[in-house]
Amino acid sequence: MTATIPKGFRAAGAAAGIRSGKGPDIALVVNDGPDNVAAVQLTTNRFCAAPVKLTRLHAENSRAKAVILNAGCANACTGKKGSDDALTMACETAAALGCRPKDILVCSTGMIGTYLPMEKVRAGITACVESLSADEAAADAASQAILTTDTHPKTVLWTSPDKQWSIGAMIKGAGMLAPGMATMLCVMTTDAAVEPSEFAAALAEAVDVTLNRVDSDGCMSTNDSVIALASGASGVSPSKEQLAKALTDVLADLSMQLICDAEGVNHTIAITVKDAATQEGAVAAARAISRSNLVKCAIFGNDPNWGRILSELGTVSADVLPFEADNVSVTINDVCIFAHGGVARPRDEVDMSSQHVRIDVSAGSGDASATVLSNDLSHDYVHENSAYSS
Amino acid sequence: MTATIPKGFRAAGAAAGIRSGKGPDIALVVNDGPDNVAAVQLTTNRFCAAPVKLTRLHAENSRAKAVILNAGCANACTGKKGSDDALTMACETAAALGCRPKDILVCSTGMIGTYLPMEKVRAGITACVESLSADEAAADAASQAILTTDTHPKTVLWTSPDKQWSIGAMIKGAGMLAPGMATMLCVMTTDAAVEPSEFAAALAEAVDVTLNRVDSDGCMSTNDSVIALASGASGVSPSKEQLAKALTDVLADLSMQLICDAEGVNHTIAITVKDAATQEGAVAAARAISRSNLVKCAIFGNDPNWGRILSELGTVSADVLPFEADNVSVTINDVCIFAHGGVARPRDEVDMSSQHVRIDVSAGSGDASATVLSNDLSHDYVHENSAYSS
Repeated sequence: MTATIPKGFRAAGAAAGIRSGKGPDIALVVNDGPDNVAAVQLTTNRFCAAPVKLTRLHAENSRAKAVILNAGCANACTGKKGSDDALTMACETAAALGCRPKDILVCSTGMIGTYLPMEKVRAGITACVESLSADEAAADAASQAILTTDTHPKTVLWTSPDKQWSIGAMIKGAGMLAPGMATMLCVMTTDAAVEPSEFAAALAEAVDVTLNRVDSDGCMSTNDSVIALASGASGVSPSKEQLAKALTDVLADLSMQLICDAEGVNHTIAITVKDAATQEGAVAAARAISRSNLVKCAIFGNDPNWGRILSELGTVSADVLPFEADNVSVTINDVCIFAHGGVARPRDEVDMSSQHVRIDVSAGSGDASATVLSNDLSHDYVHENSAYSS
Repeated sequence: MTATIPKGFRAAGAAAGIRSGKGPDIALVVNDGPDNVAAVQLTTNRFCAAPVKLTRLHAENSRAKAVILNAGCANACTGKKGSDDALTMACETAAALGCRPKDILVCSTGMIGTYLPMEKVRAGITACVESLSADEAAADAASQAILTTDTHPKTVLWTSPDKQWSIGAMIKGAGMLAPGMATMLCVMTTDAAVEPSEFAAALAEAVDVTLNRVDSDGCMSTNDSVIALASGASGVSPSKEQLAKALTDVLADLSMQLICDAEGVNHTIAITVKDAATQEGAVAAARAISRSNLVKCAIFGNDPNWGRILSELGTVSADVLPFEADNVSVTINDVCIFAHGGVARPRDEVDMSSQHVRIDVSAGSGDASATVLSNDLSHDYVHENSAYSS
């Protein structure tokens, strides 16, 4: 991963045996400063996990020294013991780093409703602290350690045009992918010098138009966490607009990586609703289409089935997305197959052979637009989620 | 089917070649009176099919002489030509029966976005009118003629305790099964003598707690139609309460038949949310759980995965379903596996071998409850919906 390329960061990944299989499953990212600014975006799920509650509390002052993350156990729906375990993760990490527990943010991912094996977690924290490094290998181990059903690590390095500051990012997420927030763990590091409230606003803005528009399976997780850390080590202070733009670029890249590695994916689907009266309406309509199992199965079967798209669009309230049916058009991979209330081009003109499928719906009632990223529903998704407990 | 058992009805089914394969694909149900009362409940989909629009118009006066139905083509999203074709179906049927087009209701089911083969439809209408009969064989042919991916006809016969009046019903529906209205075509006949507005109210009430709580795949069709015809031939006038109770019993039976024959079904899932502050909240929460692909895949895999149930429950707005997480419990097939904020009984105590799975969630915040019927998400569902266009 690339989280150690911005100046002021070290990382580590270690194999603690928390999840089955070998390889790293606990990760640590440390901000050596001089600043310790942190911004977070956390799941709105009412059964959010113990680490999410702790991170919300610890990030209240917009400061963090480090993030400790584990895969193999979500520590969600685990009651008082789960809360104690999350706090213990923070305390042990803080003790080893010589800071306060409140300076530590905690993320967990994996199966809901099981307890963390705390002895293994403790040993993993020690191993991480001992192997902390700014080397790329350490960062790679960290990006490996947070994976669940992901098939590979997902990272982005963004460098400012003047090469004076940068953002590194790692993300995991393959199932339970739906916003708010698009279900994942994500850590971003930057050596920019930022004002905490501007950093938080830029992150919220970036998440809103990227991760919150990823919808793979309509299921929102209990553990979603996006954490952005700023060290200020570059000495450069970008404007809020520059920050928001850079964070948006990074998260857009990660969003596409997420959907390309979604469980059972064969086709990605970019659903754009345009010519809508409001952006909210465009998002709602695109999301409704993205959640139709019938649309997703059709795309899996290389079938440009616009009838299923329209039947889903027809369920969106007129208050949310006003339109006249006769003014709506549907285009798949650049072939307009529905317009003026009936069949336009023949459906067999649509080339469905590419991995990336584009569905463009014009609501014909305004000039707002939005895109939601999704993917098809395949045998592999069913297999993975009927055989794997999460 | 049983639609001809109530006095005053004849039916027919004929093979017109509208859909691929042999067997009947056009059906006619005729009400010979003395009354011709009709009540309808139609899809709220904004891209509702041409026959739905026509039926809404023709049923405005709460009267109908007959219903003509076809499978193999939904006549949805077919523009002006589709509207003309639906009207032609009504006109041809009316001419053959010697009544006004306005006395005819029309239903179509099958693929969206294709035109009806009107020559075949015309011949089918003629064949139906010629073979109209009160015999059971004619009724059976009608119940066969409306099937799409259904594996068998679904009918109910209800007889009043005093044997003085009865209700016959046939339904089809296997995919695109979600309310408002649970996606299907349904025709009910009764020889009760009814007051039109009471009949309509009783039907609406019955649909609300039965078909509108069937949610197989979250997808609402463009063609949902429930049509109830009353001939008055028994001379018995049940009260509105008796009517509503009888219609509810019939539709509850049909609802279970629908979900048992849903596309790719292995397990049915009855999701009950109880101890809720309001029934609306209980319905919303049960529906959210019923639409979780992760829950549905888990049940397919015989995995009593309560974490996925809770993560879905956690997405329901507190305004809709107030609850304290620590007061929520989850029981699967009578084994309580989550309570007091954490693990209750071990998940391996849950016997998942039965076809019918019951998920009971207590919200611990009131005394309202509601049940939504759903089914698992299987390889067969994906196969059927990636290989079959509808």
